[in-house]
Amino acid sequence: MVNVRPILFVLGLVLSKLALFMYPPTILAIFNPGSGFVEFAKAVAITHIVSFICLSLGRSKQFKLNVRDVFLVTTLVWVVSTVFGALPFVFINHISFTDAYFETMSGITTTGSTVLSGLDNMSPSILLWRSLLQWLGGIGFIVMGVAILPMLNVGGMRLFQTESSDWSDKSSPRIKSVAKNIVVVYLGLTFACFVSYLATGMTPFEAVNHAFTTISTGGYSTSDGSMNHFSHQTQWFSTLFMFLGGLPFLLFVAAYRKESLSALTKDAQVIGFFKLFMVASLTIAAWLVYHDNYQAADALRVSMFNVVSVLTTTGFGLDDFTAWGTLTTVLFAFLLMMGACSGSTAGGIKVFRFQIALTLLKIQMMKLIHPSGVFVQRYNNRRVNDDIIRSIVAFTLTFFATILIVAAGLSALDLGAITSLSASITAVANVGPGMGPIIGPTGNFAPLPDTAKWLLSFGMLLGRLEILTVFVLFLPAFWKR
Amino acid sequence: MVNVRPILFVLGLVLSKLALFMYPPTILAIFNPGSGFVEFAKAVAITHIVSFICLSLGRSKQFKLNVRDVFLVTTLVWVVSTVFGALPFVFINHISFTDAYFETMSGITTTGSTVLSGLDNMSPSILLWRSLLQWLGGIGFIVMGVAILPMLNVGGMRLFQTESSDWSDKSSPRIKSVAKNIVVVYLGLTFACFVSYLATGMTPFEAVNHAFTTISTGGYSTSDGSMNHFSHQTQWFSTLFMFLGGLPFLLFVAAYRKESLSALTKDAQVIGFFKLFMVASLTIAAWLVYHDNYQAADALRVSMFNVVSVLTTTGFGLDDFTAWGTLTTVLFAFLLMMGACSGSTAGGIKVFRFQIALTLLKIQMMKLIHPSGVFVQRYNNRRVNDDIIRSIVAFTLTFFATILIVAAGLSALDLGAITSLSASITAVANVGPGMGPIIGPTGNFAPLPDTAKWLLSFGMLLGRLEILTVFVLFLPAFWKR
Repeated sequence: MVNVRPILFVLGLVLSKLALFMYPPTILAIFNPGSGFVEFAKAVAITHIVSFICLSLGRSKQFKLNVRDVFLVTTLVWVVSTVFGALPFVFINHISFTDAYFETMSGITTTGSTVLSGLDNMSPSILLWRSLLQWLGGIGFIVMGVAILPMLNVGGMRLFQTESSDWSDKSSPRIKSVAKNIVVVYLGLTFACFVSYLATGMTPFEAVNHAFTTISTGGYSTSDGSMNHFSHQTQWFSTLFMFLGGLPFLLFVAAYRKESLSALTKDAQVIGFFKLFMVASLTIAAWLVYHDNYQAADALRVSMFNVVSVLTTTGFGLDDFTAWGTLTTVLFAFLLMMGACSGSTAGGIKVFRFQIALTLLKIQMMKLIHPSGVFVQRYNNRRVNDDIIRSIVAFTLTFFATILIVAAGLSALDLGAITSLSASITAVANVGPGMGPIIGPTGNFAPLPDTAKWLLSFGMLLGRLEILTVFVLFLPAFWKR
Repeated sequence: MVNVRPILFVLGLVLSKLALFMYPPTILAIFNPGSGFVEFAKAVAITHIVSFICLSLGRSKQFKLNVRDVFLVTTLVWVVSTVFGALPFVFINHISFTDAYFETMSGITTTGSTVLSGLDNMSPSILLWRSLLQWLGGIGFIVMGVAILPMLNVGGMRLFQTESSDWSDKSSPRIKSVAKNIVVVYLGLTFACFVSYLATGMTPFEAVNHAFTTISTGGYSTSDGSMNHFSHQTQWFSTLFMFLGGLPFLLFVAAYRKESLSALTKDAQVIGFFKLFMVASLTIAAWLVYHDNYQAADALRVSMFNVVSVLTTTGFGLDDFTAWGTLTTVLFAFLLMMGACSGSTAGGIKVFRFQIALTLLKIQMMKLIHPSGVFVQRYNNRRVNDDIIRSIVAFTLTFFATILIVAAGLSALDLGAITSLSASITAVANVGPGMGPIIGPTGNFAPLPDTAKWLLSFGMLLGRLEILTVFVLFLPAFWKR
């Protein structure tokens, strides 16, 4: 039924990569006595051993995955990686496995919700590990979004099917080359972000960590004050690189190949994302000037930062947007769900789904007036067929259903309406901070009960895997025959 | 471009009917000195005069409405009726025109939000007028839903297209007969509700008013305490008749013709609505027993009452569901939007749209596992084609967009997040009460600023007319050529 061996093999491969990512913090711990070298080494060893076992058990002559296997392995990769990624937190921070699992899931899904406080005095190896988790999760998600989801046609993503999502044997070298190019772009952007942060006053350690969590739109920081801790110039660069992290990485590759930015500037989704960003930022900046007596320059800096932080589902904090009056609270509640571009590291519903829905709306209204008119819907010069519409409907429905289910679960724990709803939204959209006194931009998730943390971890996983990828596993039909 | 004369003629006809509905409260005022006979007579006279002018100006040899005219006249009928329906409130309650317009719009859209308090001591003629507005609005909406919206194909309602929405000349007698049957059913249910209320302890005056506002799922009461004011038996009958008011009236007609209930019990939408009602009620009842220490019988009575009151968008109050802890608050926030059956007097998104979305989801998930499978979507034995899916997407998108726009407008007035969001939802879904200290089940809408009342009136109108009917009027293309 399910091809166990190749699945184990893939898990083994992924765990071996995860173990490699544990090396930098382990090495860092050598140079920082008391920051957990032994504990990190233990985590590395355990991960390597389990990886080795999986690889040995999974080795076979025929490596073949059918569609169901791909669904199963996609979910398993994230769940299992989180288990092992959580080990350093358990060993060093002495937090419960629940807390560690939550923190790690929040990391690799690039959500950025945290149960840890006292970051400013925390062991640097752990801080680096958190940042690396997000950076790894970010590139993992992009590659998944380019290579796997369009093939599975989850949530209308067939619209982005390219040669790189063709998994037949002959295209294998091409996939590898595209994946390699994406990694190069990802590295390049991270390096540029690092340099910008360094040049505007961060220490090298801060710059490395924040570069990792900015490009991956993750949002973990090395300071409890998040971006409040740094200079205005740093904040502007952060805004810029969060924006870049919200763009489709394949287009960076195209731009890089063609040595022209037109691949980016002519893309419908990029244009839509930019417009949404500008309209929301300017509205909120105007509100800050008018309602909260901000200076225009400060209002722009703070509003653009927060809007892009929420839209790209990064979740860096700067000021407390829930303290600016009702309008911003209500607007941010909606912006939280929107997301940036598909093909980026951002979560949420994503701009292209709104654009397709809006074009559909326009056409439907024209049809109401001209019942016999013929209208063809296009997006980025591709025809939007009914199958894509149905996929998008299915995705959006499950997106909201997941938010409802998680929120209902949280509210059954009597966490308060604002906390329940915003925690659910922020988890499923992979944003990070919620709203309200507990989990708002100035709080953290530690005080929530364990059940809530497991629910939210599940919500983050669902959100990251575009929900349906996980939902199909719960269909009885999935396991039949 | 637009056929002004026939539009004026229709408005004149509707106003003449509205004036007739003002007769009962006018007559009642004769027998209750000081309850505004002169003022009512003035309102009747003004409405008759304007109606007469419209009819005279609109009379022409050819009566012809094209599709655009139907859109325009549909919106105008509700807007203009509200202006004249508001007159008694201005003359007798001495409230501002804004308040009177809000109250009337809330009445004829069967929303049930109110700016009036001290109902228990209010002039009976005004109380009767409020109830009549809802009763008139209810039947107006059903006839519109059966005869006009399917023809315009608004929001996927072509699914309910029957011979009665065929407007060609030869079907005219048939429409009239169906419309007559609907009115008979509506009258019959109202009478049955009246008798039940009377038998369980209401005074005849209370029974008449509440019968009007129950069957129309409006929710205006003659007491500030709403249904808390009456006996448990009355509350159970209220639950029953709200439920009936949430069913498709055409099916009552079919059942009445065939002398069999199977038309109702075999309908997919009725079954879905019933299941939703039961699952939500039992969940909340269990919560009330477990969390708030209710007796089982009380928990059932109160939860079933409130769930059906919210689902059918009636909005009668019984206890304060926002005081039961977070779970109920979160669940009711979602239930507020759902609505009951299409073809009833209820507002909201409506059960059939959720059912179609769920079937679509099931098929999409099956397709993910069996990419080459062929699946046909059906609803009530009708094929659900892509055009219907697109209509539903367009409707749902504009539904949420309207809620967002109205909520953003309210929050710009700094009304608080819960008040802004719940007011917007309750208006657009035509429910009635909101949440929070101001507009919650124990409060009312009087303290809101005028701008908020106009925004909400607009939201109620949009919600009642399935939004797109009004939205098309804002398209430049609508007014071209």
